[in-house]
Amino acid sequence: MDVERIGTDLQDTLVELTDLSLQAKQLHWNVTGRHFLPLHEQLDGLTDEVRAAADAVAERAVALGYAPDGRVGTVAKESPLADVVGGRVADTEVVAHVVAVLGTVVERMRRRIDTLDELDPVTQDLLIGIVAGLEKQRWMFDAQQA
Amino acid sequence: MDVERIGTDLQDTLVELTDLSLQAKQLHWNVTGRHFLPLHEQLDGLTDEVRAAADAVAERAVALGYAPDGRVGTVAKESPLADVVGGRVADTEVVAHVVAVLGTVVERMRRRIDTLDELDPVTQDLLIGIVAGLEKQRWMFDAQQA
Amino acid sequence: MDVERIGTDLQDTLVELTDLSLQAKQLHWNVTGRHFLPLHEQLDGLTDEVRAAADAVAERAVALGYAPDGRVGTVAKESPLADVVGGRVADTEVVAHVVAVLGTVVERMRRRIDTLDELDPVTQDLLIGIVAGLEKQRWMFDAQQA
Amino acid sequence: MDVERIGTDLQDTLVELTDLSLQAKQLHWNVTGRHFLPLHEQLDGLTDEVRAAADAVAERAVALGYAPDGRVGTVAKESPLADVVGGRVADTEVVAHVVAVLGTVVERMRRRIDTLDELDPVTQDLLIGIVAGLEKQRWMFDAQQA
Amino acid sequence: MDVERIGTDLQDTLVELTDLSLQAKQLHWNVTGRHFLPLHEQLDGLTDEVRAAADAVAERAVALGYAPDGRVGTVAKESPLADVVGGRVADTEVVAHVVAVLGTVVERMRRRIDTLDELDPVTQDLLIGIVAGLEKQRWMFDAQQA
Amino acid sequence: MDVERIGTDLQDTLVELTDLSLQAKQLHWNVTGRHFLPLHEQLDGLTDEVRAAADAVAERAVALGYAPDGRVGTVAKESPLADVVGGRVADTEVVAHVVAVLGTVVERMRRRIDTLDELDPVTQDLLIGIVAGLEKQRWMFDAQQA
Amino acid sequence: MDVERIGTDLQDTLVELTDLSLQAKQLHWNVTGRHFLPLHEQLDGLTDEVRAAADAVAERAVALGYAPDGRVGTVAKESPLADVVGGRVADTEVVAHVVAVLGTVVERMRRRIDTLDELDPVTQDLLIGIVAGLEKQRWMFDAQQA
Amino acid sequence: MDVERIGTDLQDTLVELTDLSLQAKQLHWNVTGRHFLPLHEQLDGLTDEVRAAADAVAERAVALGYAPDGRVGTVAKESPLADVVGGRVADTEVVAHVVAVLGTVVERMRRRIDTLDELDPVTQDLLIGIVAGLEKQRWMFDAQQA
Amino acid sequence: MDVERIGTDLQDTLVELTDLSLQAKQLHWNVTGRHFLPLHEQLDGLTDEVRAAADAVAERAVALGYAPDGRVGTVAKESPLADVVGGRVADTEVVAHVVAVLGTVVERMRRRIDTLDELDPVTQDLLIGIVAGLEKQRWMFDAQQA
Amino acid sequence: MDVERIGTDLQDTLVELTDLSLQAKQLHWNVTGRHFLPLHEQLDGLTDEVRAAADAVAERAVALGYAPDGRVGTVAKESPLADVVGGRVADTEVVAHVVAVLGTVVERMRRRIDTLDELDPVTQDLLIGIVAGLEKQRWMFDAQQA
Amino acid sequence: MDVERIGTDLQDTLVELTDLSLQAKQLHWNVTGRHFLPLHEQLDGLTDEVRAAADAVAERAVALGYAPDGRVGTVAKESPLADVVGGRVADTEVVAHVVAVLGTVVERMRRRIDTLDELDPVTQDLLIGIVAGLEKQRWMFDAQQA
Amino acid sequence: MDVERIGTDLQDTLVELTDLSLQAKQLHWNVTGRHFLPLHEQLDGLTDEVRAAADAVAERAVALGYAPDGRVGTVAKESPLADVVGGRVADTEVVAHVVAVLGTVVERMRRRIDTLDELDPVTQDLLIGIVAGLEKQRWMFDAQQA
Repeated sequence: MDVERIGTDLQDTLVELTDLSLQAKQLHWNVTGRHFLPLHEQLDGLTDEVRAAADAVAERAVALGYAPDGRVGTVAKESPLADVVGGRVADTEVVAHVVAVLGTVVERMRRRIDTLDELDPVTQDLLIGIVAGLEKQRWMFDAQQA
Repeated sequence: MDVERIGTDLQDTLVELTDLSLQAKQLHWNVTGRHFLPLHEQLDGLTDEVRAAADAVAERAVALGYAPDGRVGTVAKESPLADVVGGRVADTEVVAHVVAVLGTVVERMRRRIDTLDELDPVTQDLLIGIVAGLEKQRWMFDAQQA
Repeated sequence: MDVERIGTDLQDTLVELTDLSLQAKQLHWNVTGRHFLPLHEQLDGLTDEVRAAADAVAERAVALGYAPDGRVGTVAKESPLADVVGGRVADTEVVAHVVAVLGTVVERMRRRIDTLDELDPVTQDLLIGIVAGLEKQRWMFDAQQA
Repeated sequence: MDVERIGTDLQDTLVELTDLSLQAKQLHWNVTGRHFLPLHEQLDGLTDEVRAAADAVAERAVALGYAPDGRVGTVAKESPLADVVGGRVADTEVVAHVVAVLGTVVERMRRRIDTLDELDPVTQDLLIGIVAGLEKQRWMFDAQQA
Repeated sequence: MDVERIGTDLQDTLVELTDLSLQAKQLHWNVTGRHFLPLHEQLDGLTDEVRAAADAVAERAVALGYAPDGRVGTVAKESPLADVVGGRVADTEVVAHVVAVLGTVVERMRRRIDTLDELDPVTQDLLIGIVAGLEKQRWMFDAQQA
Repeated sequence: MDVERIGTDLQDTLVELTDLSLQAKQLHWNVTGRHFLPLHEQLDGLTDEVRAAADAVAERAVALGYAPDGRVGTVAKESPLADVVGGRVADTEVVAHVVAVLGTVVERMRRRIDTLDELDPVTQDLLIGIVAGLEKQRWMFDAQQA
Repeated sequence: MDVERIGTDLQDTLVELTDLSLQAKQLHWNVTGRHFLPLHEQLDGLTDEVRAAADAVAERAVALGYAPDGRVGTVAKESPLADVVGGRVADTEVVAHVVAVLGTVVERMRRRIDTLDELDPVTQDLLIGIVAGLEKQRWMFDAQQA
Repeated sequence: MDVERIGTDLQDTLVELTDLSLQAKQLHWNVTGRHFLPLHEQLDGLTDEVRAAADAVAERAVALGYAPDGRVGTVAKESPLADVVGGRVADTEVVAHVVAVLGTVVERMRRRIDTLDELDPVTQDLLIGIVAGLEKQRWMFDAQQA
Repeated sequence: MDVERIGTDLQDTLVELTDLSLQAKQLHWNVTGRHFLPLHEQLDGLTDEVRAAADAVAERAVALGYAPDGRVGTVAKESPLADVVGGRVADTEVVAHVVAVLGTVVERMRRRIDTLDELDPVTQDLLIGIVAGLEKQRWMFDAQQA
Repeated sequence: MDVERIGTDLQDTLVELTDLSLQAKQLHWNVTGRHFLPLHEQLDGLTDEVRAAADAVAERAVALGYAPDGRVGTVAKESPLADVVGGRVADTEVVAHVVAVLGTVVERMRRRIDTLDELDPVTQDLLIGIVAGLEKQRWMFDAQQA
Repeated sequence: MDVERIGTDLQDTLVELTDLSLQAKQLHWNVTGRHFLPLHEQLDGLTDEVRAAADAVAERAVALGYAPDGRVGTVAKESPLADVVGGRVADTEVVAHVVAVLGTVVERMRRRIDTLDELDPVTQDLLIGIVAGLEKQRWMFDAQQA
Repeated sequence: MDVERIGTDLQDTLVELTDLSLQAKQLHWNVTGRHFLPLHEQLDGLTDEVRAAADAVAERAVALGYAPDGRVGTVAKESPLADVVGGRVADTEVVAHVVAVLGTVVERMRRRIDTLDELDPVTQDLLIGIVAGLEKQRWMFDAQQA
C-alpha cells in the first residue's frame, strides 16, 4: 500500500475539516439577525459532524502508519479554506460563507475519492461517507438562499 | 461593566483552550507505548472537557457584547502554549507535555480570576469552574509521573 | 354495530392521512427559503404524527372487521386533498399549502366525529384525538402567516 | 457531475421504495393466518427500514440539486411493483408477495449501482447500503417458504 | 353524581379484568404447540395491558368514593368469564379461548359505556380507552384463526 | 364553531389551573410537620401535572383562534380559588386546602364539560382528561384525612 | 427428579404469591390515613415484586414439566393467607395485615426450602431469592410498628 | 446571618422570576409571524429555565428560615417587570419585550449579588449561576435584533 | 480448596457452553420454514445467554487460579454435544436438535452441581444460576414440539 | 498557594463528611416508627449526596498536592460530630440527630469558606456548593420537627 | 432461627466491608505511578461494589431483627483488615495491598458461609454472591502482579 | 451473480472471524501483567466487534443463498490463524499475538475485497467496513509495542 500518498490525502482532509470545525464554531457564536436561533443550532450540529469526521480521518491515517498533524500552526498555514470574517456576522452572510467553504471541501475531497479508488478502498469508503454528510449540510444551508 | 477588559480575559482564555483541545486530540492520535490504551482514552476525555469550556467562555463573551475570536489564524498567532511535537510521541513524553501545558493555562486563568473579582463575579465564577476541572486533569496526568 | 358505515369513515380518513403524510414529506424535501431550517424540521414532525394516526385508523378498521385500503392507487384516486406542487417550493408557499390541506382534513374528520357519536364512541374517541393534534399543527403553521 | 442521470436513478428508486413502504403497511394491517403475530411485526420493521431508505434517497437527490417527487400521483403512475391484492390476505400469500416485490426492487437498484460507479460514488454507496438491507429482508421472508 | 351506579360499573369491570389478567398469565405459562413463541410473548403483553387497565379502573372507583374490591374470593365468585381449562393447552385452543373471553369483556364494557354517557363522561372516557385496546388485542388473536 | 364560548371556557380553566400550580408550589416550599417528606414530593408532582394541563388548555385556545391570557394580573384578578395562607403551613392544613381547591376546580370544569358536549367534542375530550387526573389527585390528598 | 413433589411446592407457592399480589393491590387502592402516600407507593412496589416472583415460580414449574395453576378459582380455594378486609382500611391496619401475611408466606416457603435441598438445588435457589426479598419487605412494613 | 435581608433579596428575586416565567409562557402561546417556530420553542426553554431558577431561589429562602411567597396576588402586586401585552403578539415585538424584561431582572439581581458578598456567599453563588443563564438567554434573543 | 477438581468442572462446562453458543448461531443463520421468524430471534437470545454464561464460567476458573481453555481446537476435540447438521435446516429439526443438546448440557451440569456442594458453594451457585436459565430455554423450545 | 492551610481545611471537611455518610447509612438501616418509609429513603439520598461531596473534597486536596486521609481510624479519632446512638432508633430521634449533625458540619464549613476567600477561590467554590446542598437537606429534616 | 449467631456473622461482615470500602477510596485518591489511570478507575468500581454489598448485609441483619452497627468507631475498633498506609502510595504497592485485604475478607466470609449452611440458607446465599464478586476482584488485581 | 465464489469468500471470512473472537476471549481471560486492566477490557471490545462482524458476514452469505458454516469443527479445521498459546499469557505476548492475527485476517480480507469489486459491490462494501474496524484495532494494539 502506498501509505505516503494515502496519508497525504488524509492529512490534507484533516487540515480542511479542522479549519471547517473552527469556522463553524466561530459563526455559531457570532451570527446575528432574525434567523439567529435555527442557524446557531444548525452550526453546532455542523461542528459536531465535522469534528467526528476529522477524528475518523486522523485515526485512519495513524492506523495506516502515517502520523496525522492537526496542530493549530499546521492548520493555520495549510488550510485552503476562505477566511471567515471576524466580529459579529449577519445571518445571510453566514449562510453564504458556509455554502462556499463546504463547496471547497467537497470538491477537494471528491478528487481524493477518485484517486483512492486504486490506492485503498477502505480509506475511499471513509471519505465517501464524509462527503455524503457534507453535501447534505451544504444543501441545508444553500436552500436558505433560494 | 468594563466589557473590554472582561472580554479580553475571555478572549485570551478562548485562545488557550482552543489550542489545548487541538493539542489533546493531536496526542490522542499520536501517542505510543505500553500505556497507550488508558492515555488514548484519557486524552479524549480531556478534549471533550476543554471543548465544552471553550464554548462556554466564547458564549460568555458574546453574551457580554464582546465578539470572541476562535479562528485558527488567531489561535496560531496568539497561543502562549508550548508547541506539541509532531509525529508519534512516547507515552511518558505525552504525560510530561500535558502536565506542562495544563500548568500554563491554569496559572494564567488564576490571574484572571483574581482580576475578575472586581469586574464581574459571573465571569469569575465561570473561570473558577473551568480551573477546578483543569487542576483535576493536571493531577490525573501528573500522578503518572510520581 | 354498523361496521360498514364506521369502516367507510375510517377508510376515508386513512386515504386523507396517507396523502397528507406523503405531501408533508414531499415539502420536507423541497422547501426552500430563509425559513428552511425550522420548516424542514417541523414537516418531519408532522409526517411522524400523521403516519402514526394513519396506522391507528387502519388498525381500528381491521379490529372492527373492515379491511383498510392504504394502497397507493387507492389513495391517488380517492384523496380529496389539493395537490401539492412539484419541484422546489418557497417557504411561504409551503406554509399556505399545509394550512389549507390541514383545514380540509380537519373539516372532514369533524363531520365524521359527529356521525360516530351514535355509531361507535370508541372510534369517535380515536378521531377526536387525531383532530386535536391536527388542529394544533394547523395553528403552528398558520401562526407563521400572521 | 451528471445531475440529471443520477437524479433520475434516485427518483426511480424513491418511487419504488415509497410504493414498497405503502404495500408493507397494507399487509401489516391485512395479514391473517396462524403466522399473523411474527409477520405483523416483521412487516412493521420492513416499513420503518424502507421509509428511512426513501427519505435518504430523496434527500440525496435534493442535495445534488434534483427535486425529488414522492407525491402519491407520481408513485401510483410510475411504480413498477406488482400490485398488492386488496382485503385480508393469507400469511403464505403475504410472504410470497413480499419476496416478489423485494426481488423487483433489488434487481432494479443493482442495475443503478452498476451505472453509478462512473457517475457518483457517493450516491452509489447509498444505494449499496439500502440493497444490503433489502436483500437481508428478502432472505428473512424467503426462508419462511423453504 | 350517582356514585353507587358508576361504582358498580367500575367494580364489575375490575372483576372481569382481574380474571382476564390471571387467565392470560395462566395461558402464558401453559401454552404449547408450534406457535408457542409468539403466543407466549403476546400473552405477556396482554397481561400487562389488562393489569394496567384494572389498576386504572380501581383507582377511578376510589377517586369517586367507591371502595373497589379486587380480592381473589370476590373475583372467583363474580367473574362472568368462561373458565380457562387447566393443564397444558394447545396453541389453537389458546387463541380460541382468548378471542372468546375478550369478546365477553368487550361486550359488557360497551354496555356500560352507553350507560355512562349520562352518568359520568370521565369514567366513560376511561372505559372507551380500555375497550379500544381490548378490541385491538381481540383482532390480533382472531386474525390467527382466519 | 362558537369560538368565543369555547374560548371563554378554556380561558377560565387556564386561570384556575395557573393559580392552582402556583399554590401547589407555594405549599411545596412552605409545608411543615411530620408528613413533610411525602407531601413535599407529592405537591411537586401536582405542580407538574397542573402546569402541563394549563399549557394544553392554552394551546387549545390559540389553536381555535382565541388568544389565551395567563398573565399574572389576569390570574390574580379572576381566579375563583380560595387563597392559600402565607408563611409556613402545617401538613394537615396543607392537605385540607389542596382538597378544597381541587374540589373547586373539578366542579367548575365538570360544568364546562357538560356545555362543551354540544360545542366542541375535541375541547371536551381535553377537559375530561384533565379532570380525570385532578380527581385522582384529590383522592390521594383526601385519603390522608380519613 | 421427583417432579411431582417439586411441582407441588411450586404450585403452593404460586397460590400464595398470587393471593398476596392481589391483596397488596387491594390495599394499595383502599388504604387511608395520614400515612397514605408512602404506603400507597410501597404497596405498589410490593405488588410488582410479588408478581415477578409468581411468574418465575410458575415458569420454573412448567420448565420441570409440571403445569402450574394460577387460575382465580384455584387461588381462592387453596390460599392459606388470612383474608384482607373489604372497603377502606386504615393505614395502621394495613401495616399489621401485610406483616402478618408476609409472615405466613415466608414461614411456608422456608419449610419448602429445607425440603428442596435434597430434591432440586435449582428450584431451592429460586425460592431462597424470593424469601430474601419478602423478608426485606416484611422488615420495611414491620419497622413502622416499632 | 442576617436572614431577613438575605430572605428579602430572595423573595424579590422569586417575584421577578415567577412573573418572568408566566410572561414567557404567555408569549409562547401568543407569538405570531414568520419566526413563530423557533421563537415558540425557545420561549419554552426559557420558561423551563426560569421555573427551575425560581424553585431554587424559594427553596434557598426556606432553607435559611425565610418563608418565600410566590402566590399570584403577591407576584401581581410586587413585580417590577414591564407588563406583557395581551392578545396575539408579532415575533419582532416578542423579541424586544423579552430582551427588555430580561434586562430588568439581570440588573436587579446583579445589585443583590453585590450586597450578598458580605451577607452569604452560598446565596450569592446561587444568584450568580442564575444570572449567567439569564444573560445567555438575553443574548440569544437580542442577537435576533442585530 | 481443590482448585484442580473445581477447575476441571468449570473447564468442561466452558467447552459445552462454547459449542452450544456456536451451534445456536449456526442455526440462527440456517433455519428455514414457516416458523423462521420467531425461531431466528429466539436462537439469538439463546446465543447471548450462553455466551454470557461461558464468560462467567471462564472468569470463575481464572479467579480460582485455573487457566480456562476456550480455544476452538480444544472445544472441537472435547465437546460432548451432538453435532449440528450443516446447510439449511428445517424449523422442526432445529427445535428437536436444540432440545437435545440443551438436555445434554443440563444433565452434565447438574452432576457437577452435586459434586460442588462439598467443593465450593460459590462455584456451585454460579452453575445453579446457569442451569436455571438453560432449563427455561429447554422448555421454551420443547413446548413447540407438544 | 498555601497548600498546607487549604489542605487542612479539606482534610477536616473530609473527616466530617465521611462520618456523616456512615451515620446516615446507620440510621437508614436502624430507623423505626410510623415515618419509617420516607425517612429510610431520604437518608439514602443524604448518603449519596454526602459521599459524592467527600469524594470531590478529597480529589480537590490531592489535586493541590495534599494527600487526603479518609481512613477509618483517622475519621474515628478526629470527627467532631456527635455520636449516633447504636441499635434501633425512633423516627423522631433520627430527625433530631440529623438536624444536629448537619448543623455542626455546616457551621464548620462556613468558617472555612470565609478563610478560603483569600487562600483559594476554587476550593472555596467547591465548599460553597456542598454547603448549599447540606443546608437544603437540613431544612428537609428540620421541617419535620415544626 | 438463631438470630444472634446469624446477626453476629452479618455484623462482622459489615465491619470488614465498610473498612474495605474506605480503604479502596483512600487508595483511589492517593495512588501514583505509571498505572494510575486504570487503577484509579478500578478502585472506584471496587468501592461501589463493596458499598452495595455492605448495604445488603446490613439490611439482611435488620430484616432478621438484629441491629447492624456500621458506625465509624465500631469499624475502627473491630476491623481485622491490615491498615492501609497514609499519604501517596505507589501503584505496585496498591495492588499488593488490595490483594491482601481482599484475601482476608474472602477467607473470613467463606468460614461464615460454611456455618450458615445450617443456620440460614437465605443469608448464606447473600454471602455466596458477595464472595463471588470479591474473588473476581481479587483476580483482577492479582493478575497485575503476575 | 456468482453465488459460489462470493459465498466462499464469506465462508472463509466467517471462519477467520469466529476463530479470532474465540482467541480474543481466551486472552481476555488469561492475560496477566501490569497492563492487565486496560488489555482485559480492550479484548472484550475486540470480541464484541468481531462477533458482530462474523454475524453480518454469515447473514450476508445466507441472504445470497449460500449456507454459512460456523460450526466449531469447521472453524478448528480451516482457520488459517496462528494458534493462541494455552494457559496464562503475559501482557506483552498478548499484544504481539493480537497484532499478528489481526494482520493475517486483514491481509486475507483485503484480497477478497479486490476480487469482489467485480463480483458484488454489496458484499465488498460489507468487508470494507469490517476491515476498517480491524485495522483500527490493529493500530490500537500495535501502538503499545512502539
